[in-house]
Formats: sequence, C-alpha cells, structure tokens
Amino acid sequence: MIDESIICAISTAPGTGAIAIIRLSGKGCIDLADALFVSPSGKKLRASASHTVHFGSIYEDQQLIDEVLITLFRAPHSFTGEDSVEISCHGSTYIQQRLLQLLINTGARLALPGEFTQRAFLNGKMDLSQAEAVADLIVSSSAASHKMAMTQMKGGFSGELIKLRTALLHITSLLELELDFSEEDVEFADRTELRRIASNIETLLNRLCRSFSLGNVIKNGVPVAIVGNTNVGKSTLLNALLREDKAIVSDIAGTTRDAIEDTINLNGVLFRFIDTAGIRKTEDTVENIGIERTFAKIAQASVVLLLTDLSRGTDTFENYYRQVKEHLSPEARLLIILNKTDQVKDPLTTLETIKLCTCGEKLIAISAKTGQNLELLIDELLSTVNLNNLNSGDVIVSNIRHYEALSHALTAIQRVISGLDSPISGEFISQDIRECLHYLGEITGEITTDEVLGNIFKNFCIGK
Amino acid sequence: MIDESIICAISTAPGTGAIAIIRLSGKGCIDLADALFVSPSGKKLRASASHTVHFGSIYEDQQLIDEVLITLFRAPHSFTGEDSVEISCHGSTYIQQRLLQLLINTGARLALPGEFTQRAFLNGKMDLSQAEAVADLIVSSSAASHKMAMTQMKGGFSGELIKLRTALLHITSLLELELDFSEEDVEFADRTELRRIASNIETLLNRLCRSFSLGNVIKNGVPVAIVGNTNVGKSTLLNALLREDKAIVSDIAGTTRDAIEDTINLNGVLFRFIDTAGIRKTEDTVENIGIERTFAKIAQASVVLLLTDLSRGTDTFENYYRQVKEHLSPEARLLIILNKTDQVKDPLTTLETIKLCTCGEKLIAISAKTGQNLELLIDELLSTVNLNNLNSGDVIVSNIRHYEALSHALTAIQRVISGLDSPISGEFISQDIRECLHYLGEITGEITTDEVLGNIFKNFCIGK
Repeated sequence: MIDESIICAISTAPGTGAIAIIRLSGKGCIDLADALFVSPSGKKLRASASHTVHFGSIYEDQQLIDEVLITLFRAPHSFTGEDSVEISCHGSTYIQQRLLQLLINTGARLALPGEFTQRAFLNGKMDLSQAEAVADLIVSSSAASHKMAMTQMKGGFSGELIKLRTALLHITSLLELELDFSEEDVEFADRTELRRIASNIETLLNRLCRSFSLGNVIKNGVPVAIVGNTNVGKSTLLNALLREDKAIVSDIAGTTRDAIEDTINLNGVLFRFIDTAGIRKTEDTVENIGIERTFAKIAQASVVLLLTDLSRGTDTFENYYRQVKEHLSPEARLLIILNKTDQVKDPLTTLETIKLCTCGEKLIAISAKTGQNLELLIDELLSTVNLNNLNSGDVIVSNIRHYEALSHALTAIQRVISGLDSPISGEFISQDIRECLHYLGEITGEITTDEVLGNIFKNFCIGK
Repeated sequence: MIDESIICAISTAPGTGAIAIIRLSGKGCIDLADALFVSPSGKKLRASASHTVHFGSIYEDQQLIDEVLITLFRAPHSFTGEDSVEISCHGSTYIQQRLLQLLINTGARLALPGEFTQRAFLNGKMDLSQAEAVADLIVSSSAASHKMAMTQMKGGFSGELIKLRTALLHITSLLELELDFSEEDVEFADRTELRRIASNIETLLNRLCRSFSLGNVIKNGVPVAIVGNTNVGKSTLLNALLREDKAIVSDIAGTTRDAIEDTINLNGVLFRFIDTAGIRKTEDTVENIGIERTFAKIAQASVVLLLTDLSRGTDTFENYYRQVKEHLSPEARLLIILNKTDQVKDPLTTLETIKLCTCGEKLIAISAKTGQNLELLIDELLSTVNLNNLNSGDVIVSNIRHYEALSHALTAIQRVISGLDSPISGEFISQDIRECLHYLGEITGEITTDEVLGNIFKNFCIGK
C-alpha cells in the first residue's frame, strides 16, 4: 500500500537565497496549507484550481512568519501524482526552518531523501530507471552527463527495455505453444526463428553492457593520471587545461565553480585529473608508500599522461615509461606529453630517442606555458571517450545497478541461446527467459523490493 | 525613467538542490519565455492568465535542456510590479547555468544585486525602508531579527514616519499661515501648540534613535566578550551555552547550522561570543599585541563575562577585574562568572573576597560542566537586551542609514523647537522643518539619488 501521509521538505539548495521552496505532498496537504495560510482576498486554497499561485501570509500563533506564494497541484497532475503544494518563501534559513517546523507541528512529516520521486514512481508517473535519472540530472555537471541523464529521464532507456521485453515475451509465447503440444512430441516452434530473436536480444544487451564504461566515465568524469618528475610542468599543464574549461558556470558573473580540485570540463566532458607523486625508487619508506599510491592511481586511470620535460633530455624517461606500462590498465590509454617546446630549439633528438624506446606510443610535444599544441592534447583526450555513441542518441548505461541487472540478463539470454542450440526442453529455456525478464524488470522497477527501493532513494537529496 | 529591460537571475540559494528558481522580470519577458518554452498542449504562455503554472520543456537548438514549471505574473500583480516569470527547473548547477545563459543569449540580462526589489521600489510596490527590510528578512537568523525585519517590511516603520511627516506638515501649514499675514505683524499661529507638536516629534525621533542600539544588536547579535585566565572553563561554558541554543535550525534532521563560530541563539536572540586571549602582562611583544586586541574586544562588547575559577582562589582576579573595568564601554554590562562550583565545597570565602573587591558587581556562581545556574546566566544575558521594546510592537531602528537620517532629523527638530522658543521668523523655522522632512524622506525613498539607491541595493543578493 502506498504511504499517502503528508511529507514536506525544503527543495531548494541549502543556505540563504532570495527565495526558497518548501514542498508538500500527500493526501490532505492542501487542507494543511489552508489552515496556516491567509490570503488577502480570503479565498481558500481548497477552493482554488490546480496549477494556480496564491499570495498570502503564513501565521503561527497570530505571529506573521512570512509572506509567501503558494502553488497548488492537484492529483494526479503533480510530480508525485498526489495533491501537492509548493510554498515559495523568503530565502532566509531561519524562515525556511520556522515554516518547516510549523508544517511538521501541524501534521506533515519530513520527507526522506528522494521520497517525492519515490512516490512519483509508486504512483506510476515514471519507471524506476527514470526516477534514478532524476537524481543523475540534478548532479549532472557537464553537457555529456546532462544529456545522458535527460535521455534516461525522458524514457530512452525504458524504451529499449520495453523492446527487449516484448521480444522475450514473444519467445516465451512461442515456446509455450510448443509445450502445449509437447505430448504430441512435435517441435512446434521454429527454433531457428527463436534463435534469431534471442541472438538479437543478446546483441542489444551486449551493446548496453558495453556502453557502461562510457556511461560511467561520462557520469563520474574520465580519470586521467598525470605522471612525471617534479618540475616537468604538471601544474602548468593543469592550469592551461583549466583555462580551456568549457564549463559555462565560470562564464557568468556572480556564480562560483564547484571546488572540486582539478575537475576540468573539456567540450562538455568532465575529466578528473589526478596528480601523482613521482615514481623514483628511494630508501625512504614514506616516499615508497607514495610510489605505491601512484601505481594504484595509474591502474585506475582511463588515460595516463606521462609528462616529460624536453629541455631535460631523456635520462629518467625510460624508467618512468617502463613502470607506467607495467601498471597501466589494459583498457587505458597512454599519452606521452613532451612539455616545454618553448624552451628547446631543436626537440628532434629527444623526440627520436623517446620514439625509439616507446615503440609507437602516441607522442605530443606541447608547451603548457605558451599553449602550443594544447588543442592537439585536448583532441586526444576527447578521442579516448567515444562521444559518437553519445551523439548518435544511443542509450548509454551509466548506473551500476542497471549494469549489474543487464549483465545478469545477458548471462540468462546466453543460456537461452545455448538451450535453443541443444535438444533441451522448452520448459528449461522458458525458465531462463523468465530470469532474463526478471532482471530487466528490476531495472524499470516492475520487480522490486522495499530494500532495493530504499537503497536507490537514500542517495537522493531531501526535497526531491 | 524606469529601466524596463528584462532582467534574470537565479533566485534560490547557490549550489545544487532538488529545485532551483530562475526569475525574469521586465517588459516582454513573457514573450521571451514563450520563445524557449514548449508546452505539451501547445498553449502559449502569452495566452495564459496571471498566477498560473505551466509544465513544459525548454529547448536550445532543438536540444532539450530541462523540463520545467513556469509561473506567470502579469503587471502590476507581481513582486516587481512588472510582467514576471519564474522558471522552476531541476536544481543541477549545470542546468541552472545553461538556462541562465540561454535567457541572456535571447534578450535578458543578468540582474544586478537587489534589482528585483529596486524595481518593486521604483514601481511603488514598497517604500525604501520596506525594500531594505526585504534584505534584512533574508539574512535574519533569529526570532528577534526576523520579527524586526518583518515589522519593517510590513510597513511598521513607514507608518511611524508617515505620522511624523503629517505632524511636520501640520506645523508647516500653520507657520505658512503666519507668514502670509506677516506684513500685518500678527503672530497668527499659536506657537505653544506648535511647540507641543514639535516636542512630540522630538520625543518620537529620540525614541527611534535610541532604539537603534537595540536594533543593531538584534540584527548583528549581541557582542559578548569572555575574559579570563586559561583553564577557567571558557570553552566548557561556550559548549554549555551552545547546548541551550534555541535555534530551530539544529532541531531538524538534514539541516546544518551556519558555521559562524560561537554565535549562539538564546531565546530567539543572537549572541556573538568573542573569545579573548588572556590579559597577563608579559615581556613578549607578540603576547602583548594579543592583550591589546583583548582590550579592544572588551571595549566593543555589549556584555563582558569575566570568568574566574572558584577552585583557584582569587589571586589573579583583582588584576583582571581592574583591567576589564578600565576598558569597558560605558553602556556595556559586566557579569562576573565564578565557574566550577562543582569542584569547590565551600565557595563562600572566594565569593566574599570577590564581592569585596568588586563592590556590587553582579556575581553568578555556575558550573559550566554540570550546568548549574546556567539558566541564571542566560537570564542575565537576555536582560541586557531590552526585549520588552521588541515585544511591545514598538518600531525598532536597525539600519544605520535610517539611524543617521533620524539623527539629522532630530537635530533639525531641536532647532525648530529652539526657534519656536525665540522670536525667530517663521521662515527660518520652516527651513528647519523642511530639512527634517527631507531626512525622513530619505528613509522612505521619497527623496533619493541613484547613488543612494546604488549603495542600498548593491548589498542585496542577486536574484532578489
């Protein structure tokens, strides 16, 4: 049974602003608001239409707390699908808290994180993957992550899942036909056709599973480790890239960048630059711990920038290169950046030496100081992210819960395929199809438990 | 001429929330919003009534930026008095910035701080003192400062000023009558009556001016200096008071206290506790600078808590007491706090010694650790703030600009009174009355300059 109690929360960002919004949802919330609200005309909220805004005052014990605007949304035409009220008050934290406390004292309770969205899901306003996209949308901080979350929220992913589901149900119905006639020992369903459908499903599931590595880096930023000796220009390079940051947040006066260190937005994609300690072996235990950490960061990175200083020749380079290669993840990309072209007249000798010892790695000679070839480096960074997938409008999986469910569904459909290839009874194959459907249903929330829902919504912010 | 260009700003607190509000105001802003907004029903905003809310999507170059709710306010029924639009979007900073940039690219400009309220003032929706109260209301962080700002915003102060103005105009008209008949050498106006009115005005102005010291501490917190040796329990006392903090902000899960150090809300009044260094004279230059600072803080405090440790006797106490007395402001209140009653069996000897050397100062023996007599201390702190004035509903001046104008007006009315007491021509007296009216007009904004307005509104937040 759906909990219809009245929930309330501050839905705008915490802190002081010009305006703040307090949201109420649940059966009777309009009456609750009416009891506190005095309109100059005397008109009651309960007598007003949905989607209308009303100016008036909120009192507590005859004491004016604030002049507010109240917006009404009547079920089912609201975000949650229930009667809802939004109170727009002056943005003082004191007023926000006074109003919230007043609402709690008069019958509402503080909403749990994500509870508004959870109710929207439970009332059928959206499926679970769309609800999850709402949270992703709110934290999206780049063009790419925004686009991905928006596609998911608008039901792009759900659409793919419906296609898969329909195909799976089609196989089931054909198999069931076979089972109905099983006593007659006739293989009724055309197993070639079934296999073709199952194989298509496998291809699609495979594509979705594979898209997760892209979805994950788009959502969380591409981890880029910068490795190099001290003074090769690591921070100069970071600052140069920061100047290329296409985040619009910094363009407009009066706004501030999120203080996430070295997260740089290049052409709408977020890169997380991880500065590392040097990797020179020493006797010093503490320093060696630093080196171990550097190796761990290299192993986690999607891109490693091995930075070297052209003006200093190649003496330590080979050692660095060997060690980076040793710890690099198989899927990661290594870029060798030769910095300080502005200080070297003829970098060719060094270049050639490095080329020799790295046998075909991508080399980019730049000057972080003057910005020379920085665009080349940025293009290389962007090429590590397959944005074509994003721009083609294909659905990209960015949620690890979805990825896990898809992986299980993939295993199940692969069992279906091998079942169809062998003389196994349709009954067993049906079992695997049901399992596949089960995992897809987990994504959209058709199959779910309170525990799963709890885990999903607890990571939402309060007020959403 | 009033600037009617379309202004826009994010009006909710900066950062990520579930919802954010972007506000637009100015001639044509509804058309501007219409050009970006697509409603599922196809209905245009310009065809919709005031105070209605519309769900739809905002696109930029066919790309969906967000699904939003748009609220319409048609002139003059809006906060600014102009056509206004509020866009309620998902609270991602990325989306907020994308939308803001889109609005700017399609004809709006970023609002200056306080520009929405400035327009409300210029369009006659409120006078200047009410506009200033809007800003005070937004930063109000205690019951007392909230009540004061709310009274001012609702026009309580303006009402007092209107009374004063009417009385002054009454005197002027009587004096002008006298001037009209001046050739006949008749003192037409009854100067006793004029003097009575002027004297009433003086009394009221005096009361308002005097209320400023209360208004100021309510608005900014009562500055309390805690003076005492190390280890007498200063931080234990602060922590004990913090537990008594009646700020409702900390009562509700999911909210955070403003991180203003040692600002404690007791019974709705904010106290700013200023911890000081010791005041033991040494040879150490650095330490002596600390002592100078302590003296300065004592001089600025409204209340000084001289804290001493009962268990340690009275050896350094007299020196402390003498030095505090020397630097105490004449209006400030000194409370002598004898801490650690829990550690001393018979505090009477110490108490008596201290009583002797402080001749009648208020002594409170407490235990910060067990909380003994803490309520007594809090009552004493509260008694330093004359809350009766606040609770009687009297207008309290909290704005230094108002205080200055009132002081000037007071001087002018005092000249009027002495003019009436001496055989001075009504013309000169009228001059002083006009000056008095001028200063009162400065408060409400009837008399103002762009510079004055600029200074007032630049301290507002953007979006208000």
